[in-house]
Amino acid sequence: MTIDREIFVSAPGKVILHGEHAVVHGKVALAVSLNLRTFLRMRPCSNDTVLINLPNINTKRSWGISDLQSLLPAFQLDSAHEPTSPSPESLHILKTFAGFAEGSTDTESLAVLAFLYLYLCICGKDSPCIEMTVWSQLPTGAGLGSSAAYSVCVAASLLTFCGRIADPGNESTEASRWTKPELDLINRWAFQGEKVIHGNPSGVDNAVATWGGVLRYQSGTITPLDRVPKLQIVLTNTRVPRSTKILVAGVKDKLLKFPSIMEPVLESIDAVSQECQRVLEDMVTDMSMDHYFVLEELIDINQHHLNVIGVGHPSLDKLCQVTASHGLHSKLTGSGGGGCAITLLRPDVDPTVVKAAKQELTDCGFMCWETIIGGLGVSAHSPSSLTDSVLEALKSN
Amino acid sequence: MTIDREIFVSAPGKVILHGEHAVVHGKVALAVSLNLRTFLRMRPCSNDTVLINLPNINTKRSWGISDLQSLLPAFQLDSAHEPTSPSPESLHILKTFAGFAEGSTDTESLAVLAFLYLYLCICGKDSPCIEMTVWSQLPTGAGLGSSAAYSVCVAASLLTFCGRIADPGNESTEASRWTKPELDLINRWAFQGEKVIHGNPSGVDNAVATWGGVLRYQSGTITPLDRVPKLQIVLTNTRVPRSTKILVAGVKDKLLKFPSIMEPVLESIDAVSQECQRVLEDMVTDMSMDHYFVLEELIDINQHHLNVIGVGHPSLDKLCQVTASHGLHSKLTGSGGGGCAITLLRPDVDPTVVKAAKQELTDCGFMCWETIIGGLGVSAHSPSSLTDSVLEALKSN
Repeated sequence: MTIDREIFVSAPGKVILHGEHAVVHGKVALAVSLNLRTFLRMRPCSNDTVLINLPNINTKRSWGISDLQSLLPAFQLDSAHEPTSPSPESLHILKTFAGFAEGSTDTESLAVLAFLYLYLCICGKDSPCIEMTVWSQLPTGAGLGSSAAYSVCVAASLLTFCGRIADPGNESTEASRWTKPELDLINRWAFQGEKVIHGNPSGVDNAVATWGGVLRYQSGTITPLDRVPKLQIVLTNTRVPRSTKILVAGVKDKLLKFPSIMEPVLESIDAVSQECQRVLEDMVTDMSMDHYFVLEELIDINQHHLNVIGVGHPSLDKLCQVTASHGLHSKLTGSGGGGCAITLLRPDVDPTVVKAAKQELTDCGFMCWETIIGGLGVSAHSPSSLTDSVLEALKSN
Repeated sequence: MTIDREIFVSAPGKVILHGEHAVVHGKVALAVSLNLRTFLRMRPCSNDTVLINLPNINTKRSWGISDLQSLLPAFQLDSAHEPTSPSPESLHILKTFAGFAEGSTDTESLAVLAFLYLYLCICGKDSPCIEMTVWSQLPTGAGLGSSAAYSVCVAASLLTFCGRIADPGNESTEASRWTKPELDLINRWAFQGEKVIHGNPSGVDNAVATWGGVLRYQSGTITPLDRVPKLQIVLTNTRVPRSTKILVAGVKDKLLKFPSIMEPVLESIDAVSQECQRVLEDMVTDMSMDHYFVLEELIDINQHHLNVIGVGHPSLDKLCQVTASHGLHSKLTGSGGGGCAITLLRPDVDPTVVKAAKQELTDCGFMCWETIIGGLGVSAHSPSSLTDSVLEALKSN
């Protein structure tokens, strides 16, 4: 049933292009894949153990197959292999098994619990002996969907390893993708992993990591856009820590304090998202520069709106000012109050301009990545299609 | 009929507190008096001439009474002394008389024409011999209502001189005000002066210069608020020149390009004006600091909105950033794209903070005035109630 070769899988992070915060109040948000990826290598091993290796967080864990199998009776596995939600009881059992305190919320324990849950539920009695290494280009806790990229990689590789979905093969030098129903299954299992990690996730992050491209999200409904262009961006992390919960509460307070002022702002943000969707869809057939200028205008408008609803920060003002001085347009992405921002790079922007802007941002103490948004979702790779640095990072040692 | 002593009159400038640009699209604007004032001194003279002296623009003009009287038949004077609008014919006659080219729009010719029109229409056959000096603290062409303050001063002094309204007397050391019907007459005559200068003025500027305080303006209807607090501000002129016409057209273009995004922004600006009105009215009976904090929030919100509708400018961003670094809140006032901004000074702001902020703004090349908004409209003064510097400026020589 299980395959006997090593597989390589990757999944992207995500950024919110438009609609952060407004989405909490029923407006449209556009989430887009971020080509900072999480890479996973999985291979069979022969010593009756399951070993996971998460070099980003210096975590190595292994368990005996028989110990893992002893947990199985507590998990209500669906005979049709349909994803099942983690119950408080099953999570309690896993925490005890892995030696984590009941309330532990550190990255290590959440990553290990999500793996164990998916391993037990997806593989069931197959209980393959595997060695898994996961390494990510994504910073954790920055609102970039690193946990979803992880859950998607784990779900895709386990489903593939156990033969629940086809092995995309490793002959190609290009990334391979699964079929739509297979991707749907990956997504639904990854969502269970996200539940282990976040409790009550929206499902947007795992959907973006699975499908790639752009997703429209409104009132709990996630709709992938048919085709979208890939856009070059600079992602910047201001490294200013913030609490999403406090920021969301602040927006709600402002809405209650000034409803007649704030409700139209949310409406305008909604219209920005819809206009952005329209432009992205038009760009598939017509890549004229005018579309880029509209995207830039929308970025500026929404950044002002996000300031109005109170989720700006002096570090973000500084970032926008720096990029504006190079003729580039930026907005915060995610919860704001610091955190990350995206800067659109039109195709006609000179690389020296980008380099100068990145240098100046770095000099502010920010971290920058030049990458693309709107690219592929979860993909399988042959080793030859991966860069040396990725292969090096995935070496278990 | 005419009085035989010298009189001193002053009228304030105006700033838009909230609602600039939105008012063009039917939303509420709040205009408020700015205590940078225009001062006028008028006294009888004995050599059968009318002499005007405008030291700000190095203008001195005089005419013989008989020459002026020869123009009277061309002016349709209302027997009830009701204000009459300047016709193209009467303006043509005045331009020829004063020696101005037909299309001249410089400050000097407009100020002289407005005076001549008001002198002939208000004084009619009385034709008093007068010497008038007008000096202003207001910069011209900065959107601060300097022409309206001038028209109001001229109308008030001529109406007083010819006995159309009562002489408020010159005994008091305080400023004296006329009765409501008298102020209404001053306002309506000043509006005619504004028509000479601007062609098709809204009437807001002369109303603010007449009534003082705060006026609500919407769709052509001007409503003075009953009572409002005086607020300490810094007025800053970025000295960046701009074209109101081009800025207004730009907003219209944005509305046509992105109606679903921009219309809610205008709605939100409207709500900001209404909320500001509510807070100002509350402050008359309750000067709690909370009201000031709300005024600051509204200033920040509207400044972001004005950026969204495209009337911001890097100089204004810089200004907001400088004042924010001192804990102060600013917004552009008027047409934007440079021009002027107001910075609210809460009563608890330390004078050293204001001094430091003003110094930093001056170092940016801006001009600053620490003054109040919401103060008295047109007023009569005894010489003893005026400062030495004002009296000095009003000396004709």
